[in-house]
Amino acid sequence: MPVISGFSKLTKEEKIKWVVKHYFNDDQSVVEEFENFWHPDQKIQDNMDEFSENTLTNFYMPFGVAPNFKINGKNYCLPMVIEESSVVAAACNSAKFWLDKGGFKTEILSTVKVGQVHFKYKGDKAHFLDYFSELKPQLLEGAAYLSASMEARGGGVVDIELIDMTAFEPDYYQLKVGFETCDAMGANYINTVLEEYGSLLKEIISKNPSFSNIPDVILCIVSNYTPDCLARATVECKVEDLGTVNGMPPEEFAEKVRASVRIAEVDPHRATTHNKGIYNGVDALILATGNDFRAVEACGHTYASRNGRYSSLTHCSIENGIFRFWIDLPMALGTVGGLTNLHPMVKRSFEMLGNPNSNELMQIVAVAGLAQNFAAIKSMVTVGIQKGHMKMHLLNILKQLGATEDEKKAAIEYFKTNIVSFAAAKFLLTTLRNDKKVH
Amino acid sequence: MPVISGFSKLTKEEKIKWVVKHYFNDDQSVVEEFENFWHPDQKIQDNMDEFSENTLTNFYMPFGVAPNFKINGKNYCLPMVIEESSVVAAACNSAKFWLDKGGFKTEILSTVKVGQVHFKYKGDKAHFLDYFSELKPQLLEGAAYLSASMEARGGGVVDIELIDMTAFEPDYYQLKVGFETCDAMGANYINTVLEEYGSLLKEIISKNPSFSNIPDVILCIVSNYTPDCLARATVECKVEDLGTVNGMPPEEFAEKVRASVRIAEVDPHRATTHNKGIYNGVDALILATGNDFRAVEACGHTYASRNGRYSSLTHCSIENGIFRFWIDLPMALGTVGGLTNLHPMVKRSFEMLGNPNSNELMQIVAVAGLAQNFAAIKSMVTVGIQKGHMKMHLLNILKQLGATEDEKKAAIEYFKTNIVSFAAAKFLLTTLRNDKKVH
Repeated sequence: MPVISGFSKLTKEEKIKWVVKHYFNDDQSVVEEFENFWHPDQKIQDNMDEFSENTLTNFYMPFGVAPNFKINGKNYCLPMVIEESSVVAAACNSAKFWLDKGGFKTEILSTVKVGQVHFKYKGDKAHFLDYFSELKPQLLEGAAYLSASMEARGGGVVDIELIDMTAFEPDYYQLKVGFETCDAMGANYINTVLEEYGSLLKEIISKNPSFSNIPDVILCIVSNYTPDCLARATVECKVEDLGTVNGMPPEEFAEKVRASVRIAEVDPHRATTHNKGIYNGVDALILATGNDFRAVEACGHTYASRNGRYSSLTHCSIENGIFRFWIDLPMALGTVGGLTNLHPMVKRSFEMLGNPNSNELMQIVAVAGLAQNFAAIKSMVTVGIQKGHMKMHLLNILKQLGATEDEKKAAIEYFKTNIVSFAAAKFLLTTLRNDKKVH
Repeated sequence: MPVISGFSKLTKEEKIKWVVKHYFNDDQSVVEEFENFWHPDQKIQDNMDEFSENTLTNFYMPFGVAPNFKINGKNYCLPMVIEESSVVAAACNSAKFWLDKGGFKTEILSTVKVGQVHFKYKGDKAHFLDYFSELKPQLLEGAAYLSASMEARGGGVVDIELIDMTAFEPDYYQLKVGFETCDAMGANYINTVLEEYGSLLKEIISKNPSFSNIPDVILCIVSNYTPDCLARATVECKVEDLGTVNGMPPEEFAEKVRASVRIAEVDPHRATTHNKGIYNGVDALILATGNDFRAVEACGHTYASRNGRYSSLTHCSIENGIFRFWIDLPMALGTVGGLTNLHPMVKRSFEMLGNPNSNELMQIVAVAGLAQNFAAIKSMVTVGIQKGHMKMHLLNILKQLGATEDEKKAAIEYFKTNIVSFAAAKFLLTTLRNDKKVH
């Protein structure tokens, strides 16, 4: 039961030594294995090591690509970082499907980000709320110096509201602040401005003799929920132009897709999985571009629950013979700052995408989500999810069981008419191997 | 604007060539760069390449560790895969804080997973609903052969319900099925059983002369929303035992933490960010153990919205002088199947954790989430988020600007009393460098 003080101060080699001693029985092959996952170029590896703390080695995630995405008339090849099988294949499938049907169309619906100063104020509520019209310009002016650089780029503080939250918690109010942060995700800028508002709030009120109480600031922090930083991606075509899909006539296919989306709109259990599939595509691109997938996920899922019942992020309509399928996806992305200039593969992802600004990146990400959702539904309402999935699954199982090429062939044949499971595959291989011994 | 057919059939080398030709002006140094990120052992690299499709190279994520976690009296070192700075440091900080205060206590509240058969039935509703008591045993029996292996391990189908969803969409019903899947995440098993229920449903109804309509199955699919697959992690101690925290007396600290959690319970904008921070810790462990962070995120965020207003996943109470802080985290994890036996670093993560079963892993993950949340709130209510964060941020900026060691020292000193931004750091370095030229 090892406990250690000052672990973070050890060198990487010392950290590895400690971990291997206590958790791997001092097995030196584990030390070598960690080292073998380092980049051969020491400078690049040092750079990687500094992204977070107590780093021992690199965790490899597959870096793949999905070509043939037509977005607003321009063709893209999407970089995708994802450990789950079928996700990149599904993206490619959707890209191809829509390539000759006009491709994906996108737009930015809005770009405002949000930060909050949460505080308690125990004095007279009416007087405090009333004073806000005088307080607000003082806050704006007092922290303006922090926004000079952001304003030069076209961003800055959009508005400050005072929200009365005392119904939920005694004496609790918040300053809710809107920001434009241009190509930065903006968290650092926003947090810095908010902490200044927190200080100013206390200072201004304490200097004003009409107030007997000083606000007690609890938290000053950016919100990852940005429902007004929103991109839309759409595909549409005549129902007949959908063609026969995996043997299903276009009318039936269109209706089944619409019903599937409707189900995800009304049933939270289904909506969760439906949206999870969307994020398979979204996060692959978010990781590849060095953005923060936890922030993007949290934002989208809160948005999905905004009407009081967790629901689908995509929507579908069939009107006047036109099939239309779209997503509204909220997110706060950066194309400067963070990892974007530091991680070599992130730089390559940006180059591959033609160095988009953050609004363009939002739109590409929305397309990745929509494409992934379309491919999943297309597969489910026609052949079922398991057919394609199970082949992948089988190959993984066979790999784990150390199957030879001959055994792989036999197993693929066998599982065309039998159900794939680890147990069934193990039984088959054992049988094959025993048969061999006997003959 | 390149479009390509048969891309997936190209070799990895051919794929790289195509991408570099069309998106990197045929720059051969990019080819080399992709190759330099491969693992030196071809067999290991081949294995990595097969996790998903169209793989060109590996995307490195930092693999770090957080020692000193005491969970149910046992000490753990958590493997964490995360690209964001401060997350591992925050985990370590929480682990140390609670180490001499009893550590983390955990329990499993329940382990049932969910799958659904979504279908339309256009016949008489009352008769159909009434018949379900006869239909259910036939479904259970008809697909029982698929559960033999799972039942041998103590799992299987728990129950089937018929849900009338016709209020939301005409003729729409669902079979909602509960499963126990032991140490497997279970998606493949569940989907296979559900597709069989879908077939059986049509077959049984079509053979029964009292029905004039055959159900039309739309989707058979596992749900990533598993509110009844739930782990709880808790820390607690006497308020006075919290000690002075970053200069704040224990009573004030306890109350500010409680208020912060309360704010996240009542305000969706705050809850999103609060929960995002929880998933910083959760996903780092989910990635390290080869599980699916999209599934875990989707599940938790839906759970956070279950009462109609998106809310905090952690809770806090101060009662009779006892400070208590806990999380209820739903998730479906696997410790067998998927990447768990395939990715070398995932195997090492499991060894480091003492090869937990899925229930144990759920509890460790819940701890990682709780620890991360505690560290974030601790920092925010005392020194503010920006102090620690900004130092990291500054170091990243200095790296981007190619600062020398001397320049770094000067910048760290300067930014002790000035606000960090890219612009300010650039200005400082330019000034320092010009000063040097002048002298």
